[in-house]
Order: sequence, then C-alpha cells, then structure tokens
Amino acid sequence: MDKARIEAFSDGVFGFAITLLVLGVQVPMLKTANDAELRIALLQELSQLVPYVTSFATIGIIWLNHHAMFHSVERVEHTTLTLNLLLLLVVTFIPYPTAVLNRYGAMPSSAFLYGCTLTALGFAYSLLWLHIARSGLSSVRTDSKQARKRFRRNLAGSVTYPAATLMALFYPRVSSVIYFVVAAYYFIPLQRGTE
Amino acid sequence: MDKARIEAFSDGVFGFAITLLVLGVQVPMLKTANDAELRIALLQELSQLVPYVTSFATIGIIWLNHHAMFHSVERVEHTTLTLNLLLLLVVTFIPYPTAVLNRYGAMPSSAFLYGCTLTALGFAYSLLWLHIARSGLSSVRTDSKQARKRFRRNLAGSVTYPAATLMALFYPRVSSVIYFVVAAYYFIPLQRGTE
Amino acid sequence: MDKARIEAFSDGVFGFAITLLVLGVQVPMLKTANDAELRIALLQELSQLVPYVTSFATIGIIWLNHHAMFHSVERVEHTTLTLNLLLLLVVTFIPYPTAVLNRYGAMPSSAFLYGCTLTALGFAYSLLWLHIARSGLSSVRTDSKQARKRFRRNLAGSVTYPAATLMALFYPRVSSVIYFVVAAYYFIPLQRGTE
Amino acid sequence: MDKARIEAFSDGVFGFAITLLVLGVQVPMLKTANDAELRIALLQELSQLVPYVTSFATIGIIWLNHHAMFHSVERVEHTTLTLNLLLLLVVTFIPYPTAVLNRYGAMPSSAFLYGCTLTALGFAYSLLWLHIARSGLSSVRTDSKQARKRFRRNLAGSVTYPAATLMALFYPRVSSVIYFVVAAYYFIPLQRGTE
Repeated sequence: MDKARIEAFSDGVFGFAITLLVLGVQVPMLKTANDAELRIALLQELSQLVPYVTSFATIGIIWLNHHAMFHSVERVEHTTLTLNLLLLLVVTFIPYPTAVLNRYGAMPSSAFLYGCTLTALGFAYSLLWLHIARSGLSSVRTDSKQARKRFRRNLAGSVTYPAATLMALFYPRVSSVIYFVVAAYYFIPLQRGTE
Repeated sequence: MDKARIEAFSDGVFGFAITLLVLGVQVPMLKTANDAELRIALLQELSQLVPYVTSFATIGIIWLNHHAMFHSVERVEHTTLTLNLLLLLVVTFIPYPTAVLNRYGAMPSSAFLYGCTLTALGFAYSLLWLHIARSGLSSVRTDSKQARKRFRRNLAGSVTYPAATLMALFYPRVSSVIYFVVAAYYFIPLQRGTE
Repeated sequence: MDKARIEAFSDGVFGFAITLLVLGVQVPMLKTANDAELRIALLQELSQLVPYVTSFATIGIIWLNHHAMFHSVERVEHTTLTLNLLLLLVVTFIPYPTAVLNRYGAMPSSAFLYGCTLTALGFAYSLLWLHIARSGLSSVRTDSKQARKRFRRNLAGSVTYPAATLMALFYPRVSSVIYFVVAAYYFIPLQRGTE
Repeated sequence: MDKARIEAFSDGVFGFAITLLVLGVQVPMLKTANDAELRIALLQELSQLVPYVTSFATIGIIWLNHHAMFHSVERVEHTTLTLNLLLLLVVTFIPYPTAVLNRYGAMPSSAFLYGCTLTALGFAYSLLWLHIARSGLSSVRTDSKQARKRFRRNLAGSVTYPAATLMALFYPRVSSVIYFVVAAYYFIPLQRGTE
C-alpha cells in the first residue's frame, strides 16, 4: 500500500472540501438589479461568514494534523485506510452544515447540526490516531510528557465539541462562538518544533 | 506514457467526485427562518443520507481497488487509458443519481437509475481489469486459488448489482439496502496482506 | 520554473473541470414525489446526456494530448505558462455551455455557444503547441512524415469545429452529432506507440 | 514539515478555486425552450464575463507567484503555514464576489465587494511574502536593485486595489476595468528569466 498515494488522495479531498465551502455563501437572488437592495442583501449574507471561516480553519487544522500524523506512519494497512475514509467522509460533509448555518444563522437546529458534525470529526480523527498509535504503525514513540500534553490538547476538542453541541439547543449563538474559538485555539502551536 | 500522471489524474477525479456528493444533500429552502420548521426539514433531509454514505463507500472502494490494480501495472497504453477514462466517466456521474435518490427517496425510478449507475461502474471496472489482466500489462501473476477467490468476490458485485437494479422496479427500498450492504461487504479485507 | 508543478496544477484543473460537468445534469424539481412523473423527468433529462459525454471525452483527449506535449517539454518559460493558463481558461469554461446544451437541447444558440467553446479550445491548444514546437522547447524533433500526419489530424478539429459551429445556426442537431463524432475520432490512436 | 505536501495542497486549492469560478456564470432559467429568448439570455450573461476572466487571471498570477515564492523556501514552519492558509482562505472566497459581479454587473456594492476581496488577497499575499523574506526562510537573497523593482511592482497592486475599491462606490464600471487591467499588467514578465 503506497502511503504517498493515500496522502495525495486525502490532500485532494481536504483541498476540495475547503474550496466547496464558498458555495454555501449565497449569491443574493434579487429580481430587480437595485444597488441599495443588493447592498443590504450582501451585508446580511456577509454578516454570517463566521461559520465559513470556522469551517475553513477547522478543515485546515485537521489537514495539518493529518499531515503530521501520516508523516511518521511507516506502514499503511486496511484498517488505517478504512478509518481514513471515515475521516474523509466527515470532512466532505462539513460544507453542508456550514451552508445551513450560513443561511439560517445560529438557530438551535442549525448550530446543533454543525456541532454534531464537528463532534463526529473529532471522533473520527481520534479513532484514526488511536489506531495508528496503538498498532505501532508510527515511527514516533512519543515520550510520556509529550503524550500527556498532546492528550490534554486533544481533550479540548473531544470535550468542548460535544458540550457546545448540547448547549446549541439552548444558546446557539454562544455555541457558534465556541466552535470558532476552538478552531482559533488549535492554531496556536503546541510547542516550537513539534508541528 | 507516464503511469504516475494517470494515477494522479484518476486520484483527483475520485477525490473530486467523492466530495461533490455533498452538493446533492439539499440545504432547506424555507422562506421564514423558523427553528421548528428548519428542524423538521433537516431531519427529513438527513433521514435520506443512506445513498450519500453508499456512494461515498462505493467510490472509496473503487479508488482502493484502482490503486491496487495500477500498483502492479508495468506499462500503460492507449486502450488502458481509454478504458480508464470510461471508468472515470461513470465515477463522475455518480453524484447525479445519488442526488436524485437523496431528494426523492427510494422510489422505483430513482432506485433503478442508481442501480444502473452502479452496474455500469462494475462493468467499466471489470472491463479495465480484464484488459490489464489479459494483455499481460500487470506484473502480478495471480495464482489460480487467489484468482478464483477474487473472481467469486467480484461476482458478488457483477451479479448483485444488476439483480438489485431490476428489483428496484418493485421493491426500491430493498434495493437501496442491498446497494449499501454490497459497499459494506467490500470493506471487509479479502485476506490479510492482499489489499 | 518547475515543470512537475505546472503539470500537477493542469491535471488538477482538467480533473476538476471533467468532474464539474455532472452539475450541469439537473436533478428534477418536482413538487410532489410521484414515481411516474419522476420517471418522465429523468428520461427527459437523460435523453440529453450526449453533450455531457462529448465534453467528458473532449476534456479527456485534451488532457491526454497535454500530457504527451509536456512529456517532451524540456524547459518552461513565461509564454508557455501564459498560453497554458489560456488553455485552462477555456477548459474550465466548458461546463457552462455543456450545462446550457444539457438543459435546452440542441437549439441554434445553445449549439452555437458550445461550438464556439470547442473552437476556442482547439485554438488555445494549437497556440500552445505551436509556441512549444517553434521555440524549440520540446525534445521531440518530429520528422516531416510524422509531422504531416499530425498536422492533417489536427486539421480535422481546426476545420471541423468552426464549420460545425456555423452550421449550428441552421442545423443544431447535426452539429451536436459532429461534436460527438470528432471527440470519438480522436480516441482512435494515431499510430501504435505514438500516444 | 514537508514543503512538497504544502505546495501540492495549495496547488489543489488554487486549481479548485479557479475551476469553481464557472459556477458563477448562470445557466438561463427559461420556462419555455425558445431559441430567440435563449439567445438574448445567453448574450446578456456572456456580456458580463469580464469579472470571470479577471478572477481567473488574478488567481493564475497568485498561483505563479506562490509557486516562485515557495521554490526558494528552504524551511516551512508554523507561521508560514498559518499565513499560507490565510492566503488560501481569500483565494477560495474569490468565486463568491465574482459570481455577484457576474450576476448584477458593475454596481457600487458588487464592485466594492469584489475590490475588497482583491485588496485582502494582495494583503494576505504580502503578509506571507514579508514573513518569508524577513525570517530568512528563503534561499533567495535578492540584491537591492532586484528588490526595488519587485517592490515597485508589488506597489502597483497594493495601492491600485484599495484605490479602485474606493472608486467603486462612485464609478463601479471604471473600477471593474482597473481590476482587469491590473491582472493583465502582472502577466507581463518582470524581466527575462526572473519568473
């Protein structure tokens, strides 16, 4: 099994999913081409760009982590491939809840659906990571200190996403902000040289 | 003829087609942004995600097999290229019947169209495989036991898809389940180390 | 200037454009989910798949030729890059006239627009080819017999496309068939081993 | 951090974004398939292709420059990755203002939004370029003459884009022409052999 081809395929899917997000931002459908109306419609549309940026950052981070994870992988077998496809399944789905959130704003159902997708993303990623780590497929033997740091960091997502998803049923706007903050948080490097 | 560039092109098309599937899941078009209505519309939409997952898994499997098939190919000539483009033609078409099935659910015409596409996919794949095997373009000389196993396995798709397609005219829901089960079946590895 | 990265970028654009074609095939927009109506709508839609297949084959051929052309290129400079982007501009535009032809069938304006695009495609390709051949950027020094064969072959497209485009104003259906036949014609290999 | 994979990912995103532009060109939605009406609708649509070509050329140039910039990069670290993702965020957004401009023509709000996006693009690109140049990540030590030339050239975009964006509020048509002219200007090579 050729690792390079799996990485190339995954990169393609990440890149494609990240680019498709823009289709969820709606071109206003005005019947008369009136500048005042168009301005209002565009402002309304663009005031809801937060989910777009959140999804972009989230896919970007998952791509970076995927990249780092596979860098140390020495051997690819069937389970890795299947779990990688599961992760890609969630990644390709992201444009849908993003488009719903872009269109309807932070309402309980739209924010809940978005949160469920992020939770599934974190779950699929952890599953792949655990499989690679436990099966000894990776060349990286993380020392315990490094591992604990990484664990605490991953916890942020694993705990925050489900919590924010449940909260979305009552405070959808707060949840939307949390999704964004988590994505921003992961952009801070873990430690110099570890990325 | 450069094998690597054909693989890269094919990988790109597989990756694009698998990502385009999400566009078939419709963002509800509600006039008033009402959470109760949105919840109902989203639940209705998401209850029909089975074809989405089936298509994702099917393209994923074909990609894995394509990958394995080309791994052993030593020389690429015109017929291989043409048959490969034929396979990609069917692959790029998959988002269409998937979107129809997502939108209208398992009705005779939608399930029949979907089944026809899967049958065409199996046919195009077998054609490419047969050409490569018969023309001695592959470095793999499968021993007869292995070949028989593979043959029986491929038969599953070659026979099940047309049968389920015909059945779709009378029992579209049953057919939809079969399409999904066949995709799941192919995810079980043939034998340790053969993928 | 790195040849590999230009090829990879071009391959991506070719693969993406070929996959986007499917979005031009419309999912029927029925208000009531009635199987009889859906069947009629799907049959009507699928009876117009000829432009889809024609565009797929045309992009496929251009990709194959692009591939062969760059294989022998030894050095990439600014003009090649610009002409290559011009070719890609036409390639990425193809999904639009294809969608128009899919939707409205072979009418004078739809068939004319489609023909204009194919003519522009042939023109952009020839321009790139001429630049590479004349500037001595290619390692292939085609002997005169081979060159004449290739010239006559290219002529088929250079003359047939504009002629069929003009004819589209009067006999749009005939033109549509010609576009398809030209694409099929180019799939016949020039000579064993020359592709 | 593997430079090749970042380049491949970026190339993918550039290629996808450039191909998605075509979805902003609308297929006419006529109820009756009448050739005269279709011709008028197509002519109206195609008379607004200038933003499509401008965006294509702009993404093409950014890709070429990105390519040249990374060619000399010796080491990729976290900030480069983050700034590169920021650049890609703007690039993937381009199809949206392009579609708005295609649909509504050069009106103050559509031309202003388009200009803001180009300004953000120039800003994100300069940020990435400055970071790479200042952090000594690049192997190219541009001599001062070359640097001044490049600086003056980049100035064209850095100054012209914001100016044209502001002008769009009063003379949207003039701005649209300027966006196009700037893209065309950058296609003229800086100096033989420097691209």
